[in-house]
Amino acid sequence: MASMSAVLSKSPFLSQPLSKSPSSDLPFSAATVSFPSKSHRRGGVIRAGLISPDGGKLVELVVAEPRRREKKHEAAELPRVELTSIDVQWMHVLSEGWASPLGGFMRESEFLQTLHFNSLRLDDGSVVNMSVPIVLAIDDEQKASIGESKRVALVGSDGNPVAILSDIEIYKHPKEERIARTWGTTAPGLPYVEEAITNAGNWLIGGDLEVLEPVKYNDGLDRFRLSPAELRKELEKRGADAVFAFQLRNPVHNGHALLMTDTRRRLLEMGYKNPILLLHPLGGYTKADDVPLSWRMKQHEKVLEDGVLDPETTVVSIFPSPMHYAGPTEVQWHAKARINAGANFYIVGRDPAGMGHPVEKRDLYDADHGKKVLSMAPGLERLNILPFRVAAYDKTQGKMAFFDPSRPQDFLFISGTKMRTLAKNKENPPDGFMCPGGWQVLVDYYDSLTPAESRKTPGEKNVLPVVKTPPSRSSK
Amino acid sequence: MASMSAVLSKSPFLSQPLSKSPSSDLPFSAATVSFPSKSHRRGGVIRAGLISPDGGKLVELVVAEPRRREKKHEAAELPRVELTSIDVQWMHVLSEGWASPLGGFMRESEFLQTLHFNSLRLDDGSVVNMSVPIVLAIDDEQKASIGESKRVALVGSDGNPVAILSDIEIYKHPKEERIARTWGTTAPGLPYVEEAITNAGNWLIGGDLEVLEPVKYNDGLDRFRLSPAELRKELEKRGADAVFAFQLRNPVHNGHALLMTDTRRRLLEMGYKNPILLLHPLGGYTKADDVPLSWRMKQHEKVLEDGVLDPETTVVSIFPSPMHYAGPTEVQWHAKARINAGANFYIVGRDPAGMGHPVEKRDLYDADHGKKVLSMAPGLERLNILPFRVAAYDKTQGKMAFFDPSRPQDFLFISGTKMRTLAKNKENPPDGFMCPGGWQVLVDYYDSLTPAESRKTPGEKNVLPVVKTPPSRSSK
Repeated sequence: MASMSAVLSKSPFLSQPLSKSPSSDLPFSAATVSFPSKSHRRGGVIRAGLISPDGGKLVELVVAEPRRREKKHEAAELPRVELTSIDVQWMHVLSEGWASPLGGFMRESEFLQTLHFNSLRLDDGSVVNMSVPIVLAIDDEQKASIGESKRVALVGSDGNPVAILSDIEIYKHPKEERIARTWGTTAPGLPYVEEAITNAGNWLIGGDLEVLEPVKYNDGLDRFRLSPAELRKELEKRGADAVFAFQLRNPVHNGHALLMTDTRRRLLEMGYKNPILLLHPLGGYTKADDVPLSWRMKQHEKVLEDGVLDPETTVVSIFPSPMHYAGPTEVQWHAKARINAGANFYIVGRDPAGMGHPVEKRDLYDADHGKKVLSMAPGLERLNILPFRVAAYDKTQGKMAFFDPSRPQDFLFISGTKMRTLAKNKENPPDGFMCPGGWQVLVDYYDSLTPAESRKTPGEKNVLPVVKTPPSRSSK
Repeated sequence: MASMSAVLSKSPFLSQPLSKSPSSDLPFSAATVSFPSKSHRRGGVIRAGLISPDGGKLVELVVAEPRRREKKHEAAELPRVELTSIDVQWMHVLSEGWASPLGGFMRESEFLQTLHFNSLRLDDGSVVNMSVPIVLAIDDEQKASIGESKRVALVGSDGNPVAILSDIEIYKHPKEERIARTWGTTAPGLPYVEEAITNAGNWLIGGDLEVLEPVKYNDGLDRFRLSPAELRKELEKRGADAVFAFQLRNPVHNGHALLMTDTRRRLLEMGYKNPILLLHPLGGYTKADDVPLSWRMKQHEKVLEDGVLDPETTVVSIFPSPMHYAGPTEVQWHAKARINAGANFYIVGRDPAGMGHPVEKRDLYDADHGKKVLSMAPGLERLNILPFRVAAYDKTQGKMAFFDPSRPQDFLFISGTKMRTLAKNKENPPDGFMCPGGWQVLVDYYDSLTPAESRKTPGEKNVLPVVKTPPSRSSK
């Protein structure tokens, strides 16, 4: 932990950019980074300086080392439930307390409160936000195999138990209702729905979770997956008196950078002495046409190398949650999880967690609903919501600037679609839109897809594995 | 008011049953009933004995008599919005404070909180329940005609202004999202959706409501439409120390009666000295195959004449709300509105406000979700939820009784569909299912439909105006 902290205090990423390291094709080397030991992951003391976690105490569900062996023996004897990769991501989220005070996959009472109220009432009468269902689906056969057991082992794709779920409750999986209440539509083609719900089992299983080992992905990025406890430790070490979180799942351009820099300036004006930015890219499931995490991390590093953001006041880490694309419902989850990591300010832009309607030619959500819903959400009263000021490319200055409605003709809005099209065609955006190094990562990414394109067999259409539009028909 | 109170203190309906009165084909005469004057409708003092209204003060939005003339003159000058009959029912609901503390049709912030959280946060930070959107839709043309005006007149079907909406806000009507989040499905064939949403305008208009006159329907039943203030007055007059509300939209059978009687017994056992039953049939829009209000009121009177319920401890009144058939979402509204009328106990059964799925062969909602959601709903913590015990026909006793799971073979469940089929065919249910007078009302009702049937023209199918199934395809 000492080495990582040292690293993080000098730069949001690493002491020195290591993307030129010949030993790895990833931009970061793990050489100087050690993983936090168990003692760092559990029972971290929360200083008065940081916002307290939901429910007052950070939930951590990884079994302590001395008991792992014993728990693994127990798990071997239990009925088994195999996890999908998205299930594992949610298990990861739960295990580190991003969803505190949730102690495992939801039981029905938690599921219903989430669907209807986007919040959970605790035993003491207080309310915490909880807007997306964190549930585990099983099919009829799995249910039958569990029988009367009150505990099950959760099993990874290699067949080994990774967790135990205790005091279980099995209840019906009302898919249509879950989808309608979470997304506000049941139109076919919602990416998460097609990936994780349509073909999932007709039952949900909830219970108390114990994870046998910290979750790792072995993709060279694990060391950026800091838990809420680790982030709190780092933020305290830096003496943060305000922490502002920026959720992203796209490449960072200079408009984002302007916004983050400006937010810090505003917080200093408000009297905070040391506001720290938590730049927090989402690391779980994303839809096929989003830029994959590893490429986004490369791009983020280039942007940071470029000096657009101050390493001394920026922490970069990966948020392990899968993406729902559920707009105003999901943005609450994105904000709530960051409270648990110590953030007391949350930046929200136009149409957060939104996407195009899968069937109709319009955005799925009203672009302003996300920030409105977030600002009124139960359980988030302690969090300061910072709405985006819209940034666009100012042709008169040749850089990204806050949009000035008195001279709209001077501004150019570059959408995500436009950005992707330019990068795919190896064209350059206007100077000052994104640092050249960051742009090159995007060009390289789309370039890397070409072999797949060239492998296209005759008669096959649209086989680009990543740059595809979501299917417009459900197989449901 | 004096005469009505006298009436109500003797019988839940009237001092004497008047259904035999030759002067009316309705079972009740308005002869001895006068409407409460303005002084009774506004500013009633709430005694400590009754639960306080949501927000602490009962909202009443009918303009006081001295100012009505002036307000009508103002209304004549304003842009006009014509109301549908369901809009008028909601205006009625708002005007009497059933939705307290809501002061008019919802603005966007209230609409979004309702959709996402089923509750509203008030300025003082407290939370009240609000689960169904009470909104007013307008179309593009109406929106254009309103222009920059900050006030509009609401106009009845006769073209006369009935209310003023002030400090208006016009915002988009996201129909799909509204439907999905309210019903948990967007399947075609939801009765309220087809009646009031699918063809409604693409904008919603919210604002502060002032209703120019108390809402009347002139259907012979207005005197049973007691406002929350009037009900509170009556309940106080009776010295109620507990008020238990029973929402219904169907004929009352002896199973219901057993339940209500048993609830009173339980409340007495709990130490209450004078629990009063608020028997509260829903009076607004219902779907085509429900028994219409006037026939239900006739049926209720027969049941009460039969002495099944004690007139001294029962108040019968009409709840003016339209019906959504939105299950767990709507049952919260049914409960919350009764708090405003003074009820601190609410009886909830299997699948409240539920119906069959409009497309699939199953119930739309899990039969247990209604009571579970209700028991956890934000803003309803003050209300005591009394879940139904299931009553069924006990063949060994020849009467309705609480189901005894140790001898299931002795019980007969008579569904609403079964009941309707028997009445339509002029068959009798088992003795003890419903009093003969009440049953005869149902038989008479279905008999009254026969002429419509006989008017059926060749080639036309299924033209029974009332006994039809909801359409299975939307015209959307």
